[in-house]
Order: sequence, then structure tokens, then C-alpha cells
Amino acid sequence: MKSIRNIRLTLAYEGAGYHGWQIQQDQPTIQGLVRDAIQRITGEKISLIGSGRTDAGTHARRLVANFRTKSSIDAARLLRALNGMLPSDIRVIRAQQVHADFHAQRDASSKIYRYQIYTGAILPPHLAREFFHFPHPLDIALMQRAAKIFAGRHDFASFAKAASTAGIASTVRTVYRSELARRGHGLIYTVEGNGFLHHMVRNLVGTLIEVGRSRMTLKELRELFALHDRRRAGFTAPAHGLVLMRVCYARASKHQ
Amino acid sequence: MKSIRNIRLTLAYEGAGYHGWQIQQDQPTIQGLVRDAIQRITGEKISLIGSGRTDAGTHARRLVANFRTKSSIDAARLLRALNGMLPSDIRVIRAQQVHADFHAQRDASSKIYRYQIYTGAILPPHLAREFFHFPHPLDIALMQRAAKIFAGRHDFASFAKAASTAGIASTVRTVYRSELARRGHGLIYTVEGNGFLHHMVRNLVGTLIEVGRSRMTLKELRELFALHDRRRAGFTAPAHGLVLMRVCYARASKHQ
Repeated sequence: MKSIRNIRLTLAYEGAGYHGWQIQQDQPTIQGLVRDAIQRITGEKISLIGSGRTDAGTHARRLVANFRTKSSIDAARLLRALNGMLPSDIRVIRAQQVHADFHAQRDASSKIYRYQIYTGAILPPHLAREFFHFPHPLDIALMQRAAKIFAGRHDFASFAKAASTAGIASTVRTVYRSELARRGHGLIYTVEGNGFLHHMVRNLVGTLIEVGRSRMTLKELRELFALHDRRRAGFTAPAHGLVLMRVCYARASKHQ
Repeated sequence: MKSIRNIRLTLAYEGAGYHGWQIQQDQPTIQGLVRDAIQRITGEKISLIGSGRTDAGTHARRLVANFRTKSSIDAARLLRALNGMLPSDIRVIRAQQVHADFHAQRDASSKIYRYQIYTGAILPPHLAREFFHFPHPLDIALMQRAAKIFAGRHDFASFAKAASTAGIASTVRTVYRSELARRGHGLIYTVEGNGFLHHMVRNLVGTLIEVGRSRMTLKELRELFALHDRRRAGFTAPAHGLVLMRVCYARASKHQ
């Protein structure tokens, strides 16, 4: 009898051509394309577990996924075969056999996202795919102070997509890092947390922009945590400025 | 009678969708699209002078062009009108009225190009458009020494596209800077010169790679200048790794 192996994949993709991570009927998604490629290679029906969803249009540098297989295909050969089948805007960066217990979603201890804004008048073409163009005056020093307020353990219900929180046990999340850096005309927001609600990063960014436009004070921003009201926070910044940079596994050493 | 004004444009573009800078019959080119947009705005037939050609697929961050017009359109309004008409992968970064004598090609004192190579096994999707993927062992320290050999005044005939030098008065060019830097898995080659022959930068890069693969010694590389033989230098590195970074005008202060 063949033993079942657990394979962990690290994936990078440009989100522009896809309807996000999660499999959808009749729409191209990252999970759908990668799963189909694995099934063609192994000849099995498999279930591909992702570290979490990404929105349509959002990019990833290092999303983690895993699947169980009876196939004996070597991880290095699997990686080459997958990259041979997948379009060049989806790449398997790494494939490795891991402990049977490893679960890409449940075991993720934190995720790091980056959101990129371009504030100059004219968006350089080579930045257009991954930067949100916002060519309006912003009080960046104030936005940097606002970004720090998101750090810590808070109820982020006001920053979750309306109606997405209905079935969720808790809207409390811990943000370990929340920083806004300026690089020329670019603004790079980096946020690391133990989990993110639907649209949460994009709503944090929209709220930072409201602060930078002097449409919300730091006091009003602090009060948002208690309000649990999506309508009071800022707009949802567009998906194409968002990049999932990394998924961290605290217990990774045990499971590999 | 209306006076004739000389307008200088600074252009940025992603080259993937275009057959290079120069106007061609029945093929989309940067010069063709920008000229057509200017003609629609001014209602005149105009001639758009570029600082130089770029190959099909090559990118530019700051190409300079100029044209003469009887139109009285304000430069800032022209810039907005052009960006409104052009596709988002071509942007007018700057538009300004300049001295009547300014000539984007003749007056250019130097050009700075960058060539980008990715040496890691798997090309990250967000780098795929502007990096040449070369996942093979390279002696980078030796390539860095080789790059310095290109600096100075040399006959670059061996590095020009075969047959492109027939009508050229001289194949001698001065390279002011020629440096190869390593950034993680990336190799960034920067070259500044007073002019470049057809395919010259891509052939310099192909030759550096031959050196890095131990297929050419530094001594053999030095001898190429005297050989005037395209077949002895390295291959032509692909166009999509090449970026025109800047065009410099030594006398710019006089003409603006």
C-alpha cells in the first residue's frame, strides 16, 4: 500500500489575470490552476490547502499551500513539472515534503502584507501593475503615526468587508507590525498580523489615506476599534496595490 | 503670424507591446503613437525627434524627444492631453517649451542604459517583464572585471549588429561608465556612453555572460576591439532586459 505524503508548496504570482486565490466555477483562480496542474501530474484528485485567500487582482511573493498525495513523485521533479505547466505569472518557488500534520492555513502563525501607493503626478509604467496611484496631497508624517495605532490586539470589525464577519467567531486580531515608509514618490505600508479579516489590509490603507487627507483625526481612528462599523472607516484601497509577502510558521522546524 | 515653438517631452514606457521606438508602417511603435496623439491635439503634421531608437521590447524610464509646433497649447495642458490619449504603458513624464535650437538626438551628450539579469532558478513573476532569466552558474567577480574593460574610448564594431555599421562614419564610441552590480539573485549592468551602436548594449551583456561562463577570457575580450568582427563577441541578450534610464544634455541649461 502506498503511503500518503504531505507536500508543501511556496507560490508566487501576479494577480492581474486571476479572480484571486480561491477556486471558483468558470473563473481562472490561482488555487484552481495549481490544483489542476497537480492533478494532471499525479493522476489523483487532490485538495489544495492555501495559507489564506487573496482577493482578485492581489499579488503574492510567497503564499504557502499544501496537499496530500499517494504519488511518489520527487518534490524537485514536481516543482519543475508544475512550472512547466503553469503560466509564467504563477511560479512554484519551492516544493518540499513535510510532516504529515503540516496544514498551510491552520499552522500559519503570521502573514506579512505590503501595500504600495504612488503619490507622484504621473504613474511610471513599470510601477503601474503593483502601485495604487494616488496623486493628491497627503500628510505622510501623520499617516505614519496612524499606521502605528493599528499595531496590537484590537477588534478590527470596522475594517472588515461588511457582511463578511457574520459567521466569524471573533473579529479580534493581533497586528505585530504596522509601518508606513516613504521611498521617493512611493509609500510602502507593511503590516504583519496573526490573521486578517476580509479586505482588512485594503481598508486599513484606505483609512490611512483618509487620515493623510485630514478627513479623519488620530482620535477618530482610535475610536474605530470600538465602533464595529465598516461605514466609519476609510474606503477599500484597490486590490492591485496589495502584495502578500510572506506566511510565517512558528512551528515550522518541528514539521519539516 | 504664429511663432513656432519647440517642445521637449520626457517619455517613459514598457516596451513589451511595441515594435520599438521608431515609426513603422502597420506596427505599433512608441514614436508612432506619441506623434499621432500630438497631431490629434495640435491639428498639425509634426515631426517627432527622439534621442535615439530603442529596440522592440526594450523599455525606457526617461527617453527625450522634441517637436516643433505652431500650436499655442500650454505645455502642462499638452502633457495632460497626451497622457489622456496614450495607453497607460506609455507616459509623458514631462513637457516643456525649450530653446528653438534644442534637438533631442543631436544634442544628447550621453545615455544611461541598464540591463537586468535574474540568475536564480525560478524567475519571480513580478520581475519577468524586465529581467533576462539566466539560471546558470556565472563567475560574477570576473564579469565585474570584464565590465570595466568596456569603459573608455574604443572601436565597438565587434559589438554592433552585423551589417548595421555599413553607413556609419565611425564605430568608435566613448563609454563613461560600465559596471555590474549584484543584488541578491539579480545582476544589474549599468552603462553610460556618448552613443551606442545598434544592439551594442545587448551585445556587451552577451559578451559579459560568455566571460562569466568561462567561454571567453579577459584577454580575448580586450582583443575584440581590434577585430571588428561581430561573430567573435557574445550573443545578443534579449531586448526585454534592457532599460533606457536617462538621456543627458550637457548644454541643457543653455537651451531651457
